Amino acid sequence: MKVAILGAGAVGTSVAELAGEYGHTVTGLADSGSAAADADGIDVDAALASKAQEGVVGSADPSDVLDGEYDVLVEATPTTLGDAQPGFDHVRTALERDRHAVLANKGPVAERYGDLRDLEADSDGSVLFEATVGGAMPVLSTIDDFGPDHITAARGVLNGTANFILSRMGADGLGYEHVLAEAQDLGVAEADPTFDVDGTDAALKCVIVANVLAQGEREYSLDDAEVDGIVDVPGSAIDLAKEDGRTVRLIGEVAESGAVRVGPRLVPENAALAVSGTRNIVQLETEHAGRLNVSGRGAGGPETATAVLADVGRLPE
Amino acid sequence: MKVAILGAGAVGTSVAELAGEYGHTVTGLADSGSAAADADGIDVDAALASKAQEGVVGSADPSDVLDGEYDVLVEATPTTLGDAQPGFDHVRTALERDRHAVLANKGPVAERYGDLRDLEADSDGSVLFEATVGGAMPVLSTIDDFGPDHITAARGVLNGTANFILSRMGADGLGYEHVLAEAQDLGVAEADPTFDVDGTDAALKCVIVANVLAQGEREYSLDDAEVDGIVDVPGSAIDLAKEDGRTVRLIGEVAESGAVRVGPRLVPENAALAVSGTRNIVQLETEHAGRLNVSGRGAGGPETATAVLADVGRLPE
Repeated sequence: MKVAILGAGAVGTSVAELAGEYGHTVTGLADSGSAAADADGIDVDAALASKAQEGVVGSADPSDVLDGEYDVLVEATPTTLGDAQPGFDHVRTALERDRHAVLANKGPVAERYGDLRDLEADSDGSVLFEATVGGAMPVLSTIDDFGPDHITAARGVLNGTANFILSRMGADGLGYEHVLAEAQDLGVAEADPTFDVDGTDAALKCVIVANVLAQGEREYSLDDAEVDGIVDVPGSAIDLAKEDGRTVRLIGEVAESGAVRVGPRLVPENAALAVSGTRNIVQLETEHAGRLNVSGRGAGGPETATAVLADVGRLPE
Repeated sequence: MKVAILGAGAVGTSVAELAGEYGHTVTGLADSGSAAADADGIDVDAALASKAQEGVVGSADPSDVLDGEYDVLVEATPTTLGDAQPGFDHVRTALERDRHAVLANKGPVAERYGDLRDLEADSDGSVLFEATVGGAMPVLSTIDDFGPDHITAARGVLNGTANFILSRMGADGLGYEHVLAEAQDLGVAEADPTFDVDGTDAALKCVIVANVLAQGEREYSLDDAEVDGIVDVPGSAIDLAKEDGRTVRLIGEVAESGAVRVGPRLVPENAALAVSGTRNIVQLETEHAGRLNVSGRGAGGPETATAVLADVGRLPE
């Protein structure tokens, strides 16, 4: 397949680096201000070296990528809320051109799910977005395999940064600010960790799962989620939980009622939900097959890129 | 789809009971000596009541099902080793008639993988077998999604009976014979638990995973596996492990070298591999996305039937 990639952050560059190994040709790669585009395939190594050394992906314009030749547009620009722009318009362009779109950007799927499905319905192209929920973990494909009809609820740990912070607070009795600073030093937390620690990132993932489970009968956006973050979780609460064999995790859930909630919850220390460090886990409650757990790396460039490329592999030629 | 089911044990009857809910029509159901068959759909409730009350599924012959009308043959007769008969010939008949075959029977996939793929290559029908590895857990579909090329190794707990026994021995300091008798009383262990406790069942699942990962470059059968069971694991060994924060689990693995091994292994008590009771877990080592864990119910009629029906849903109409 010919793959064009918008967004040259950790995910976009990893998709570009790995696409060849998966048998695809990268016909474009763009960051917000520069791009490399070639209908026969760009030189990915040269584009990444240029970005690292000169700060530009190449001499083309990002619009050359969006309007250029591809079978699949990979939308890996940063997630934005509300109108989910410019990601939404990128996907619109691809679908209106009857091309496929694969998203790593959560915005359009969480905030404008109905609009996205409407565009898809009018297009010969398809929309896939496994990478938006849980990085490398095959959450949406597992739901798809089981059939959303046969899954009654979902819950899990869906933000590695928040989980790293809570794990470290629990293991070493350290305070929030101390551990956050450490996480930033380690590159686990971003300079601005707001969306990770206030629950927004986990909530977006839950909203996406809720949209998939609802199959169009109801549409969710971030406004429908009840969200609490971990900023106000005191170390003393974690210490107290520990004495009782429990710990605190930021749990997101889509309840059987359809309610979407994210917040710090007490979980048994040895429970499957109490994953450590940056790991993520999703539990699916199934109608006939009990509880299914999927855990793995929920973020990271190559990890998320494998989910993007798995989606590309699912598309019809 | 029109679905015909061979085998009226826990899995076959659950497939028959759930097929309607998944939008399919059951055109035949057979045990080893009797059957119900109707090209327009059998009365599943009546067939199951007849089997329960009179010991026969219906007045038809099993061959009426195999030679009757269906899009998909579900092979859910008991697993046999070596030539994997009669399951193998059932699948052969379906494929030679250009019908699809979905297997819950491990024999043909573990013991005659090359023959099975050869039959499929000559047929318009496809062969799927998610249910043969880990019941409800989507192990093979996850491998398929990731691409077998990008998975370097697999390991896990793949037999719920053996895991129940080891869990109980560890938790309560009880001996093997005592716990086995209890497991039989609870219906967790069969009257003849040989294949579960000697490692054969777990080894068959590992052989199937090895065949899928090898993609035809090498063919595995049970003879290629190094297999130890749990019969000789003394309670004292588990007690000793516990003092060291570890426990014993029957671990099956497909190593990066391609070696297939099953045997009791020491694992940390709080490790993901140390699942409790009858739960199963599979860990996949991926090339670019670290380790992925999938856990869930590895056996049971409805659980395994959901995997069969997920396969049916994957088939082209």
